[in-house]
Amino acid sequence: MVAGTPRLVALDWGSTSLRAFLLGPGGEVLASRAAQQGSAAMRGAATAYEAALDHIAGDWLASDPALPVLACGMVGSKHGWTEAPYVACAAGAQRLAASLARVRAAGREIAIVPGMSCRAPGAAPDMMRGEETQIVGALALKADLESGCTLVLPGTHSKWARVGHGQVLDFATYMTGELYAVLRAHSVLGELMADAEEPDLDGFAAGVRASAGCSGLAHQLFAVRSLGLSRELGAGALPAYLSGLLIGHAINAALRARGAGDRELPLVLVGEPKLTALYERAMHICGVPSVQRLANTAPQGLWRLALAAGLVSDTRESTT
Amino acid sequence: MVAGTPRLVALDWGSTSLRAFLLGPGGEVLASRAAQQGSAAMRGAATAYEAALDHIAGDWLASDPALPVLACGMVGSKHGWTEAPYVACAAGAQRLAASLARVRAAGREIAIVPGMSCRAPGAAPDMMRGEETQIVGALALKADLESGCTLVLPGTHSKWARVGHGQVLDFATYMTGELYAVLRAHSVLGELMADAEEPDLDGFAAGVRASAGCSGLAHQLFAVRSLGLSRELGAGALPAYLSGLLIGHAINAALRARGAGDRELPLVLVGEPKLTALYERAMHICGVPSVQRLANTAPQGLWRLALAAGLVSDTRESTT
Repeated sequence: MVAGTPRLVALDWGSTSLRAFLLGPGGEVLASRAAQQGSAAMRGAATAYEAALDHIAGDWLASDPALPVLACGMVGSKHGWTEAPYVACAAGAQRLAASLARVRAAGREIAIVPGMSCRAPGAAPDMMRGEETQIVGALALKADLESGCTLVLPGTHSKWARVGHGQVLDFATYMTGELYAVLRAHSVLGELMADAEEPDLDGFAAGVRASAGCSGLAHQLFAVRSLGLSRELGAGALPAYLSGLLIGHAINAALRARGAGDRELPLVLVGEPKLTALYERAMHICGVPSVQRLANTAPQGLWRLALAAGLVSDTRESTT
Repeated sequence: MVAGTPRLVALDWGSTSLRAFLLGPGGEVLASRAAQQGSAAMRGAATAYEAALDHIAGDWLASDPALPVLACGMVGSKHGWTEAPYVACAAGAQRLAASLARVRAAGREIAIVPGMSCRAPGAAPDMMRGEETQIVGALALKADLESGCTLVLPGTHSKWARVGHGQVLDFATYMTGELYAVLRAHSVLGELMADAEEPDLDGFAAGVRASAGCSGLAHQLFAVRSLGLSRELGAGALPAYLSGLLIGHAINAALRARGAGDRELPLVLVGEPKLTALYERAMHICGVPSVQRLANTAPQGLWRLALAAGLVSDTRESTT
């Protein structure tokens, strides 16, 4: 039994995981579920996507066959269920909602949110899938951010997005999380490390401080080894030092990249609370006086996009 | 049969390989051999080191049991044959030669060159093993460099060493080669790559150019993926682009780190000719007008250190 009237099945379908939300009037989360059936494991097979959708939300859809379904994330990549081509910056919720891709499954239409791309003059392109929906959700939750802010979405490929006029103006990817995982598992830096249940906060802070300046990440990283060899940092502190170095490196580089006009705008972290708390700590060390934090805003983003696309209507407003 | 009179068995014994040189009067290379029996494979077992030495140089030592043996590299690490503790910067050949470690094997003494360490105020320590001997060799070959130069030794852990007054003043490690190997084999960046027999020089140059500025390596790296996804770089050019990005990153950071007084001093690349040629190309793109290049100088370094330690005498000079 679910409280409230279901209005939308919202799917946050990334590479390695699938999260499903049953949303009620106004986007209220009535129920949520998670599965390991990420888009990468589907190998582009429509039948695999259909089976995964049926597995995670089949009962929701059986009790209300007319429920619309909206998905974001790698499910819309070239090697996903169907490709939802990137929408170029600057763009906001209206443009994204007007560019949904569609697939049919079991007689039902599934709408898929496109990713976004941007390109600075003379630079390589950048792209994201899934984070655009979290950004839309953050702006839906905090309307005052629409006029201008920097949103930071930490993760495997962290995104730093500049927002203005209710749109994503541009963004940059930092491979922070992937560098951490790869260097820890496969490089000489992991050799001296021991697992720790909670990050060693002193080691983390030392790593963040060591990331200051432009002396070169490839050089700064070697300190993880030299501090371990010289026993100045214990095996349990080395993972946190590496994490602090990589997170601090991205923060410092992103702060340097901000234009003078952006420096007064709010910085907002969006994501899993343990991770955003660590980023907030690092930002303070890097001299950022105040940071806002939001948890995963994908459900709010999917609701807002479903509204803009006419998949749902805001019945809370229409009944008042 | 070997031409000339053997004077020294010189061993360049790194983590993954062992190179042996039979040196004659004046350090002339009479013969050389290589084996895969690197120090890491010995797992610290004296018997394994003895067997590897016997395998690669047993016949040389049998025909002249009084030949001295001098080794450099990871063989002298804490987990090597015996530890030769780091000599702190600033130091030159005399200090290194006065700090040789010794082990006995089959009734013979083997001398081992210590590594070097250095530490900038407020920074993590840095260390090297094996490169100090190549530096000594470079200075032995080119005496005019002793008064001041920057030596660059590309590799898994590239070393940038500042030389003055015939000593290594300080140095910095850049994990350039290891980052390339690990990111190519284990990160998302390797997914779109194809092998190429020779590096794609246009892709390499584009990577070097993209490394300019302080916009953050963790961000710049994502271009390897975005340029691949957008098909702006072909699969065969992506490895060279990644290589150019990492090498350019280290060059730019190291050039920024040089003091004003060092900027007029010669830059000298030491190592395997294909790799130093690539670095020379990258340095030109980064605005370095001229660079010298030397091949592996370990034999010359071992000879110079053996002379300074009294293991050999310079018979060419003493007979004139």
